[in-house]
Amino acid sequence: MKRFSRAADALLGQPMFQLLARVQELERAGKDIVRFEIGDTTFGAHRHVVEATKQALDEGHVLYTNSQGLYELRQAICDHTEATLGFRPTEDQVVVMPANGVIDAVVRCVVNRGESLVAPDPGFPTYAAVASYTGIRRNTYPQRLRDGQFFVERADVEAALDDDTRLIISNSPNNPTGMTSSPQDAEDLYEVAKQNDVYLLSDEIYSRLLFDGAHCSPSVHDACQERIIVLNGFSKGYAMSGWRLGYAIAPPALAKKLTLLFETVYSCIPPFIQRAGIAALTEHQEEIEVYRTRIQKSRDRLVEQLNDIPGISCTAPRGAIYLFADISGTSMTSQEFADRALEEASVALLPGTNFGPGGEGYVRLCFARELETIEEGCRRLQQVFGVKERQHETVGLRS
Amino acid sequence: MKRFSRAADALLGQPMFQLLARVQELERAGKDIVRFEIGDTTFGAHRHVVEATKQALDEGHVLYTNSQGLYELRQAICDHTEATLGFRPTEDQVVVMPANGVIDAVVRCVVNRGESLVAPDPGFPTYAAVASYTGIRRNTYPQRLRDGQFFVERADVEAALDDDTRLIISNSPNNPTGMTSSPQDAEDLYEVAKQNDVYLLSDEIYSRLLFDGAHCSPSVHDACQERIIVLNGFSKGYAMSGWRLGYAIAPPALAKKLTLLFETVYSCIPPFIQRAGIAALTEHQEEIEVYRTRIQKSRDRLVEQLNDIPGISCTAPRGAIYLFADISGTSMTSQEFADRALEEASVALLPGTNFGPGGEGYVRLCFARELETIEEGCRRLQQVFGVKERQHETVGLRS
Repeated sequence: MKRFSRAADALLGQPMFQLLARVQELERAGKDIVRFEIGDTTFGAHRHVVEATKQALDEGHVLYTNSQGLYELRQAICDHTEATLGFRPTEDQVVVMPANGVIDAVVRCVVNRGESLVAPDPGFPTYAAVASYTGIRRNTYPQRLRDGQFFVERADVEAALDDDTRLIISNSPNNPTGMTSSPQDAEDLYEVAKQNDVYLLSDEIYSRLLFDGAHCSPSVHDACQERIIVLNGFSKGYAMSGWRLGYAIAPPALAKKLTLLFETVYSCIPPFIQRAGIAALTEHQEEIEVYRTRIQKSRDRLVEQLNDIPGISCTAPRGAIYLFADISGTSMTSQEFADRALEEASVALLPGTNFGPGGEGYVRLCFARELETIEEGCRRLQQVFGVKERQHETVGLRS
Repeated sequence: MKRFSRAADALLGQPMFQLLARVQELERAGKDIVRFEIGDTTFGAHRHVVEATKQALDEGHVLYTNSQGLYELRQAICDHTEATLGFRPTEDQVVVMPANGVIDAVVRCVVNRGESLVAPDPGFPTYAAVASYTGIRRNTYPQRLRDGQFFVERADVEAALDDDTRLIISNSPNNPTGMTSSPQDAEDLYEVAKQNDVYLLSDEIYSRLLFDGAHCSPSVHDACQERIIVLNGFSKGYAMSGWRLGYAIAPPALAKKLTLLFETVYSCIPPFIQRAGIAALTEHQEEIEVYRTRIQKSRDRLVEQLNDIPGISCTAPRGAIYLFADISGTSMTSQEFADRALEEASVALLPGTNFGPGGEGYVRLCFARELETIEEGCRRLQQVFGVKERQHETVGLRS
């Protein structure tokens, strides 16, 4: 006894939540930590979303409801999809569940133990965590660098497929690199999935957080009718991480399976939280732009100040809320850098290796933070890791 | 392609949520249905719980938090456990997640595909649903009848075990039968688990809803240190079904595994919902008693009125919120009765067979409803299924 299942023995969890738990413990012990580790925002929730949640509570939206999601929310998601991606799914294609749950459910509904999925390296840790505990092989494709921006090469995705591959996972805008797909990239992904007759899970959780160009989704090529599943949600684009609200748009037969799985393990999403989702999609859209602009300013400040540290080099990413900074010039490993940042500078950030071996030499910082937090965190990092000598500083100031 | 995984092919979901979705569709189409199908309450949420949720939203408890659960909530759960079960777990033994998720996570962390678990028949459908989609064999033990009350025989549980059994599931107060364990029953369950060196998941979600006697848990015999996992939550005892908040108390090493699994698939429970849980456990405990008394009155009215229908026979259950009524005298199957109730009487209730073959000849009705709803539902059922001739009615009125 005391023996666990094979699945339990292979559980990895999410490294950022493990660091978050450690940081909260340090904070309970009185330590003051600047937190760049977790992908939420300290800008605060949008007022109308909070008010919609409270109103739904007062109106008694507090009982069990449809496992697939409130019909009105699914309608709003269909409207939003039509407005942003250009095709309108049916309400039957939409399944409301936490975004992380979508990854888990899609993988488990289309891939068997011993078969494989294909995912980016570096990539969001849940892809690896779900593959690990389910006994599914994970083949990876790299993210390559050109002029400081990451990109994905079609040939690399193709090379990652094997005879037992059932699913490709793509993620643009990307966590952790901020990579964004071009229309050609999106079409390539669709083509590779089609030619190899596999499903494609397009994780678009950062689709409202692009600083440059437009969001491109492979889903426009099959309208989620055949093989593409779009994952989206409210945590990132609507500053609603604590609501735990996301959704899948999937081919109808798969949407039924996802609903059955979610129904089995979770019953349904709280209806007052789903009402908040309706408010987020339909009210005060101007707040999204204000929010994105604030994030962009924080991004630029972080890039500027981190580049002042010897051995660090980074370029502003095109999307998402993370800076994936190259620290290879410090001659520390990612883990060493992250450990020293926390222990010596009281700054929490994630080693790039939390996102796969391809993240060695990088650290990830979430920049959806107030400018003062960015300043304070960088001040502390500069105190520990130093400041570059600026050869032309005085000249620059004169010009 | 379009091929699903073995897991997806074996998904059953939860029949009550499938009926709920159908009923909501009928209601959208304008139909007036008396709803006894789903296990929530129309008495309304407790005011202080709603206010605590709103206050937490206003105070900004809206970001990601510890996957295992807020430390303060886990403390409150430890206090509550000490007060109600007599032993105090450590905060490390408590994992906050939806109660249905606990069943799924415990099964997946301790049982492998091809091994077996042991569960009651009739029993809560999630036990069967999780076993089915994970490829785990489910051996069942019956619930037997004596004087209108259901009970579980130790020898029946023992007979259900085989060489590959890893887990026994028990459930008192019971859904759907209302059975409650005696202290001897609870000790027997612990002994059987210990002698066979298996885990025991004690589903105690209805522990605050006994109408007769005290709640008895097998966990008092090992304080959840060795092999017992207590499942509890807020949906039933605190009228909080829509909050989707529950918890497990487990041996420390297993609690770690449950946390990792929950972290992987859902990250964490919304912190404003966890704050509501703290309020439910620590404020206005007198409301629980008011709520239970209302439920008891509705139970008694339902029993009385259903017994007036020819071919139906039922006794008030000792716990939980369901009447498991014997309809075998109607010469209809459970499914036929439930179908006619919905189609001809516009009353939604569940066939006993939704809870396993052992439920044939029964239907389940949730009685956490206003007296007027009980009256109206029974009036409709009596219109369709008739009223018994009462031989001594006039005599009774005279006495």
